[in-house]
Amino acid sequence: MTAMDYSPAAWAETEGPCLRGFDEPGEIASINGALALRPQIEHMVDQLWDQGFDRIFFMGIGGTYASAMQAEVYMRGRSALDTYAGNAAEYLTTGCRRLTDRSVVIYSSVSGNTKEIVSMVEKVKSQGARVVAFVDTPGSLLAQPGKWDHLVQYPKNEQLKFYMVANYLMYKNGEFPEYEAYNQEMEAGLAQGLANIEKISDRWAWSYAKAKAAFLKDHPDLPHYFIGGGNQWGATYSYAMCYWEEQMWIRTKSISCPEFFHGMQEIITADTPVTLFMGEDEQRPLAERVARFLPKVCGNYTVIDTKELPMAGISPQFRGSISHLMMHAVNNRVDAYLEHFLRHPLSIRRYYRQFDY
Amino acid sequence: MTAMDYSPAAWAETEGPCLRGFDEPGEIASINGALALRPQIEHMVDQLWDQGFDRIFFMGIGGTYASAMQAEVYMRGRSALDTYAGNAAEYLTTGCRRLTDRSVVIYSSVSGNTKEIVSMVEKVKSQGARVVAFVDTPGSLLAQPGKWDHLVQYPKNEQLKFYMVANYLMYKNGEFPEYEAYNQEMEAGLAQGLANIEKISDRWAWSYAKAKAAFLKDHPDLPHYFIGGGNQWGATYSYAMCYWEEQMWIRTKSISCPEFFHGMQEIITADTPVTLFMGEDEQRPLAERVARFLPKVCGNYTVIDTKELPMAGISPQFRGSISHLMMHAVNNRVDAYLEHFLRHPLSIRRYYRQFDY
Repeated sequence: MTAMDYSPAAWAETEGPCLRGFDEPGEIASINGALALRPQIEHMVDQLWDQGFDRIFFMGIGGTYASAMQAEVYMRGRSALDTYAGNAAEYLTTGCRRLTDRSVVIYSSVSGNTKEIVSMVEKVKSQGARVVAFVDTPGSLLAQPGKWDHLVQYPKNEQLKFYMVANYLMYKNGEFPEYEAYNQEMEAGLAQGLANIEKISDRWAWSYAKAKAAFLKDHPDLPHYFIGGGNQWGATYSYAMCYWEEQMWIRTKSISCPEFFHGMQEIITADTPVTLFMGEDEQRPLAERVARFLPKVCGNYTVIDTKELPMAGISPQFRGSISHLMMHAVNNRVDAYLEHFLRHPLSIRRYYRQFDY
Repeated sequence: MTAMDYSPAAWAETEGPCLRGFDEPGEIASINGALALRPQIEHMVDQLWDQGFDRIFFMGIGGTYASAMQAEVYMRGRSALDTYAGNAAEYLTTGCRRLTDRSVVIYSSVSGNTKEIVSMVEKVKSQGARVVAFVDTPGSLLAQPGKWDHLVQYPKNEQLKFYMVANYLMYKNGEFPEYEAYNQEMEAGLAQGLANIEKISDRWAWSYAKAKAAFLKDHPDLPHYFIGGGNQWGATYSYAMCYWEEQMWIRTKSISCPEFFHGMQEIITADTPVTLFMGEDEQRPLAERVARFLPKVCGNYTVIDTKELPMAGISPQFRGSISHLMMHAVNNRVDAYLEHFLRHPLSIRRYYRQFDY
């Protein structure tokens, strides 16, 4: 190491956008690696299909519960398959009579040892349901034999993996005739398209993060309000909770676009900080209603609209299915600069896994 | 009117708890009137049962969506019937392939003209599903012929009405053998029991509201955090949103007990105002975990535990099914005093139904 590594200059406020922490080849390889799981996922779903099932449960806790909600809302309007988003801790206490020995439970875990997920898997297996496990960490508890019926070990990209399962299920059920064309476009363009979004939103993200960090210094108590609907709701919920609250210790509130108009709207005034996530799925009109309302009562709002972002090679009708990933690409840039401006390493936790509770 | 009505003394801070705005005979009559709907509800469910159905959707928006979530979580662990909680605006945009011409949609509306509900009913009817309408306001749009297959007109008690439908559905499905004993207890003791809770919690509620109003003056930006699980989750979500945000313009954030540990916990410090709603259904252990955690990191938390409240004549095993109503009785008292201490009439709105958006 050189003296430079310790110099204040190395951590001084960047003079401008610098793609901080952006590993383009790494991110492209990560997404293409996830997309390359398709034969494995299809083979797995073929087996589940041949055995038959009554219902599909995307199950999670915290951020993975948000991803489960995204998969459910994606299939809700498209598929006649009985699909649920389940919360692991709720399942452990309330249970679910509709989850039977003919059901399929799909989950994803980064650590491979999340408390609620480990217990959920045990209970689900004891009830005879089949378990599809996406586990990021090889050798972890949840990757052990006996803990799953189908195991996919590959890091990150949980939302994409769930959608890949959903897409093939709908294809099998005759609900996705464009499946092959869809995958050709994704496999050719998704990874580079998302990397491009990080690059072109870097300048904006730097400004947004700088402004937010300054505002936070003056208003440490004030929560930041995030609003989103459709597959942006899972993105909104988990971004507010898992990134700003958990990783940055910033107060937030998230609300879905339709629910915003039934209570929360009343506490928005001229200076309230609000960010609206607009995607391109069927619930976009609900976000547009929020976008029309906000300027009338608030002068401190931001709209991030994926429709303004390019995705070369992706047909317009497919953009809705990935607009939460496009939003994630923008937010990656915001996080990189907030970490810097707040001088708050995203990896530290006050309480989580720090002591028993 | 006398001069007294205009004197500052008439609106001066009450010197102590005074059961402000409490109409005991009125509240008892309201609940007993709802319970007396049972023959009508049973007759209606008998007809639906004889016709057959594939799925049941409790559908709502805002506060009624919260009640739908309560009905769904109540049945989730008890009933094999396919039951969903649906959001009307999401249904209007995303749709739901699982909602068919053999489905039953149950909703409740106070005004009888809520925008999203009116459109949802039209769409549901056009798809051939049957509509069970609980409408508070006679003569309103949603009470018109052609808008429903079954109409129950009776004011308030939406959560109770939904549970009465759920209870009889589960009875019909062989999942509630104690149905008659349960109803005998409720019809004999629920109304007076809830009125008693208002009376015995009045003193505590006065102190809580006084302290909260004072804290709010010093910390107007800081949100109040509400946490609850099981059928308290709907109560927590709607209490924070429909009462504190909408009716009092106080910042809040609500989170479910299990999700609290996956992000939001990190922004709780010694002075953060938190209220935990503890009920007595199957998810009570999830609230107990929050109750064990909070004192370690926070000195400004309140736990409202329905277990500490009496309900004469109600068997212990039935209390979980009404603990959200018990919590509501406590919160009625809090609202009555907050309205006073904040000098904020609960009926006023900044934006809702004030202009088009």
